[in-house]
Amino acid sequence: MKSTQKRSPKKQNHVVSSAVIHRLPRYFRYLRMLMREGKTRVSSGELSELMNVTASQIRQDLNCFGGFGQQGYGYNVSFLYAKICELLGVGAGFSAIVVGAGDLGRAISRSDMFEKRGVDVISLFDVDKALIGRTINGVAIRDMADLESFCRDNRVDMAVLTVPKAKSEEVAARLAACGVRSIWNFTGNELSSLDIPVENVHLGDSLMILEYRLNQADEETERRTLS
Amino acid sequence: MKSTQKRSPKKQNHVVSSAVIHRLPRYFRYLRMLMREGKTRVSSGELSELMNVTASQIRQDLNCFGGFGQQGYGYNVSFLYAKICELLGVGAGFSAIVVGAGDLGRAISRSDMFEKRGVDVISLFDVDKALIGRTINGVAIRDMADLESFCRDNRVDMAVLTVPKAKSEEVAARLAACGVRSIWNFTGNELSSLDIPVENVHLGDSLMILEYRLNQADEETERRTLS
Repeated sequence: MKSTQKRSPKKQNHVVSSAVIHRLPRYFRYLRMLMREGKTRVSSGELSELMNVTASQIRQDLNCFGGFGQQGYGYNVSFLYAKICELLGVGAGFSAIVVGAGDLGRAISRSDMFEKRGVDVISLFDVDKALIGRTINGVAIRDMADLESFCRDNRVDMAVLTVPKAKSEEVAARLAACGVRSIWNFTGNELSSLDIPVENVHLGDSLMILEYRLNQADEETERRTLS
Repeated sequence: MKSTQKRSPKKQNHVVSSAVIHRLPRYFRYLRMLMREGKTRVSSGELSELMNVTASQIRQDLNCFGGFGQQGYGYNVSFLYAKICELLGVGAGFSAIVVGAGDLGRAISRSDMFEKRGVDVISLFDVDKALIGRTINGVAIRDMADLESFCRDNRVDMAVLTVPKAKSEEVAARLAACGVRSIWNFTGNELSSLDIPVENVHLGDSLMILEYRLNQADEETERRTLS
């Protein structure tokens, strides 16, 4: 019987642009840091210095969510933090499985990233007999063959996809078919033909940005040497 | 004696906006795919369909690099691929070390991401005696105590930082001090006070975007149920 853990979605009053949405996780991180430091108030100016974003951008972004600041007071840190958590669905009790228990899958399972964002990792899956039956941080690695029955018995909000690239389409389709509601895709193969939300992660892209910047630095050095 | 592998930087004729630079890695990936499929020509229209970007955006981006397309012909795939590799410094023979040989460090070392982008991983480092002396894909895990002497004897273009967050500032400063030229930072702590290029990776950010989209999907369902 499917575990009927009914989730209540957080209400959102405004339609927010994609650019602002993508800036939200950074606000989350800084506000969490301020909360930990015990800071109760913060001005847009202080946030601006901390985050290296203009104060007006900050005010504009936060206004999208109903304008929490008060003239002369600034923002209440814990209220703002709670609001952003609500918007992002943090603490909403999402459940996740990790599909592909290789180095990356295990590394991701072990990180505290999920816990910090209210996501509960409830199982890993693999085809490798040497891995099946092990536990990572107390979470079991199950046989891929048991995927469908597991998803029948448990609500799975997201699957972290860390299988080999060649298997990505096939496994993604299987996940969507057994009711998994979203995919966090680390395979490097952009999945685009599914009906469920997919976040494609391309670590190699940021490596290439670094290469570009190194190349620019080299060229600058060469220009100075030759002049 | 320092290995004097002199690198020749690739020349860049135009100043390119940050937005375009950040789109380059994606062009790289799709062009590499087309190369593998043996395709010799591609039009901006075909690229547009493949990449889900408007054809005019594609033409505009590629024009930033000197306009490689020909009216009626489109673009020569291998020429375009080579040009983008040159711009990004791929194949320029960068050397990298991985600092912090935990799950994530080892996962990153083992991936083919570096090889595909012309980066050679020449060592890992850790403080854990159980890890020191092991090899990952034939690359040795050395003692952190030997970091300075290693960097004296070898050119290190980039350090992949996968140490615990609490150690990030200290280790980053140490790396910059011993001549490492850039840092690819996975610690989650934004490093901003260094003179060398740093790419900060925040995997948790894309997790939060997925949570937001799931939350939106839930809310949409609830709205429909109630109406």
